[in-house]
Amino acid sequence: MSAGGEAWYGTPASAFAPADGGICAVPGLRAAGVAAGLKPDGALDVAIVDAGRACDVAVLQTTNQVRAAPVEVTARHAADGRARAVVLNSGNANACTGPDGEQIAVDTAAHAAGLLGCATDEVLVCSTGVIGVPMTAQRPALLTGVTQAVTEAGPDGAGAAARAIMTTDTVPKSASLRVADGDGGCVIGGLAKGAGMIAPAMATMLCVVATDAPVPWRVLGQITRQAVDRTFGRISVDGCQSTNDAVIVLATGTAGREPAIAAFTNGLTAVLGELAEQVVRDGEGASHLIRLHVTGAKHVSDAVALARAVADSVLVRTAFAGGDPNWGRILAAMGATSVQFVPERVDVRFGPLTVCRFGVGASFDPGQAEVILSRPEIDVTIDLNLGSAGATVLTCDLTHDYVTINAEYTT
Amino acid sequence: MSAGGEAWYGTPASAFAPADGGICAVPGLRAAGVAAGLKPDGALDVAIVDAGRACDVAVLQTTNQVRAAPVEVTARHAADGRARAVVLNSGNANACTGPDGEQIAVDTAAHAAGLLGCATDEVLVCSTGVIGVPMTAQRPALLTGVTQAVTEAGPDGAGAAARAIMTTDTVPKSASLRVADGDGGCVIGGLAKGAGMIAPAMATMLCVVATDAPVPWRVLGQITRQAVDRTFGRISVDGCQSTNDAVIVLATGTAGREPAIAAFTNGLTAVLGELAEQVVRDGEGASHLIRLHVTGAKHVSDAVALARAVADSVLVRTAFAGGDPNWGRILAAMGATSVQFVPERVDVRFGPLTVCRFGVGASFDPGQAEVILSRPEIDVTIDLNLGSAGATVLTCDLTHDYVTINAEYTT
Repeated sequence: MSAGGEAWYGTPASAFAPADGGICAVPGLRAAGVAAGLKPDGALDVAIVDAGRACDVAVLQTTNQVRAAPVEVTARHAADGRARAVVLNSGNANACTGPDGEQIAVDTAAHAAGLLGCATDEVLVCSTGVIGVPMTAQRPALLTGVTQAVTEAGPDGAGAAARAIMTTDTVPKSASLRVADGDGGCVIGGLAKGAGMIAPAMATMLCVVATDAPVPWRVLGQITRQAVDRTFGRISVDGCQSTNDAVIVLATGTAGREPAIAAFTNGLTAVLGELAEQVVRDGEGASHLIRLHVTGAKHVSDAVALARAVADSVLVRTAFAGGDPNWGRILAAMGATSVQFVPERVDVRFGPLTVCRFGVGASFDPGQAEVILSRPEIDVTIDLNLGSAGATVLTCDLTHDYVTINAEYTT
Repeated sequence: MSAGGEAWYGTPASAFAPADGGICAVPGLRAAGVAAGLKPDGALDVAIVDAGRACDVAVLQTTNQVRAAPVEVTARHAADGRARAVVLNSGNANACTGPDGEQIAVDTAAHAAGLLGCATDEVLVCSTGVIGVPMTAQRPALLTGVTQAVTEAGPDGAGAAARAIMTTDTVPKSASLRVADGDGGCVIGGLAKGAGMIAPAMATMLCVVATDAPVPWRVLGQITRQAVDRTFGRISVDGCQSTNDAVIVLATGTAGREPAIAAFTNGLTAVLGELAEQVVRDGEGASHLIRLHVTGAKHVSDAVALARAVADSVLVRTAFAGGDPNWGRILAAMGATSVQFVPERVDVRFGPLTVCRFGVGASFDPGQAEVILSRPEIDVTIDLNLGSAGATVLTCDLTHDYVTINAEYTT
């Protein structure tokens, strides 16, 4: 990766030992995914992640003013920084569903709590699917699914849980690693979903992470916010912010010793970064993963804002779908922001190929551009030549398949 | 049209007498469009609009930080509020082309001025096409085209001029009307282009308007800004702001008497509104014109901001492409803005059909929704139920054809 300044992850993944099992790599974690009939095709649609004990918890949720019922209920249940389990469903977002929807979210948590033998407010809830469809008719199936999920939950259930929260996702998202720390250390594992309605905001899509490290919830909240800002905060599939986004991090504390904050932060950032990259790779209809590196900025915040503007440009993303080296659209997207830069200083490179030098088109070999733009992963470097700060934002191209998927989502 | 509060035009078009001839409906106006070879397919690509005398002029240009060469040159030439003619070309935006590009823009104005017998700074220049392609090789053809256009310019040339500035446009855009004012009155006529890279900003795409009313340039500037805010400022095809946008209004003054400001403002707003609507109707790949009416707002600015957010949502616009009554995406797009509203009060209607009542899904006949959403024009009313202000923003759906057009623009 050629970006200067801040990299996509805080620390390269190679600094960590791999761990198998996704979220269940964390000792004591049990998970399950079952088919409760919420999805008409009979696919898995209800998941549980159970830490087996009350944990410290950090929750980051959507900043959208329209908040789904489970977002409200989870906010209340996590207000004391304690939680044990998370119940998730796909097949319905339970958003814009009024008091009935909120009651169903509460009932889901209470039902799971009864089965697990814990307090209702120790269970968090997440939903994903279509907005604005009442869940009332699906309530019995949902609760039956929760019963089944609690019964089936085990240390091998991470894969099924990750599959059960998929909507337009084509693959489940899962990651885990071990953070070394002298003779101690901890494990961090997580699962996520998300393929559309993905934009850089406080949090994005659904993501549940667990660790055996003992981290007090207020500290966990600060670390989580920092890690999300650098990972889920720097991806965009379509610039559309969801009503249901949530990142939940559970710390069981069974590892005993408190980890070094820096090592733990880097580990959490690496897991969230891996999950976020999986989300963009599986972006609705995507045929290319695009890494936008803005370098030479005066401030990281400038680099992030400019990279986001490029990532959110429909014209830039359709150009990448067509393998079109149309770098002028990149400059136009940056120019429409309020971030000050000097157009006459900007360089743009596709991979190693300079296509724009000091704001003017460079002469380049169209054949070489075609080869670079046909690859599944494309690095785009935008050097402002103003300072030494940088940031990377991941996005994907906007294809015919994106239109097909989203023109036919509810009907 | 069912919108409360401010309507799309200040005054219904029926308040004005129609006038034939587009911009050439204005007495003394001559125009031409010629094929100079800038477009590889031999279509018309150089246009001139000549008022035949120095006029008061108002110019609104893109707020993008990346400004094409002709934007800079026109800004300098119009700084004194005086201009006689406008030269426009398609086939190359002359943007991100460095000092060579700026010299070509200056040379174009000087060449036309020499032929017309006026000062160079009385000629304004506009370009549209691909960004970042040097114009050096096209310079001779461009100047030859200007010579031909000046020679051919006449009172019947408005149609050819409108065709010569088309890029991905499928139809030329032209409008004119007569403003009655006792035994006086004036004529206002214009032409425009634009099909993609259309977003609400200060000005949008290329638009040249003329009137025989005598209006001092500072007053003309104020009136033009107000009229643009309510028309071109309230459309969106793809949320992407161009490097070349300009609206130019020439006032020849031959009508003699100064018009009543209110009548003239309404007339100019009607002409700009008609041209803006033509732009959205011809939006790249569009199959539906969508009129987004936000009503019941506390302030007009709130209504405009919310309607724009909905118009810019890729997910909303793909839903309309598929005839999908997915109103939840409308609420999600509004919720992502900083405009405060109460989700539990919002009503959404497709035509007369209520699909969301007080923030929750209403039960509606899917067959009726299908009929409404299959029509070429769709009225969407979003009632915030908070106040009495409103605004209408026009957009179009995001289709497979948009992706096709924009994936293949330069290659």
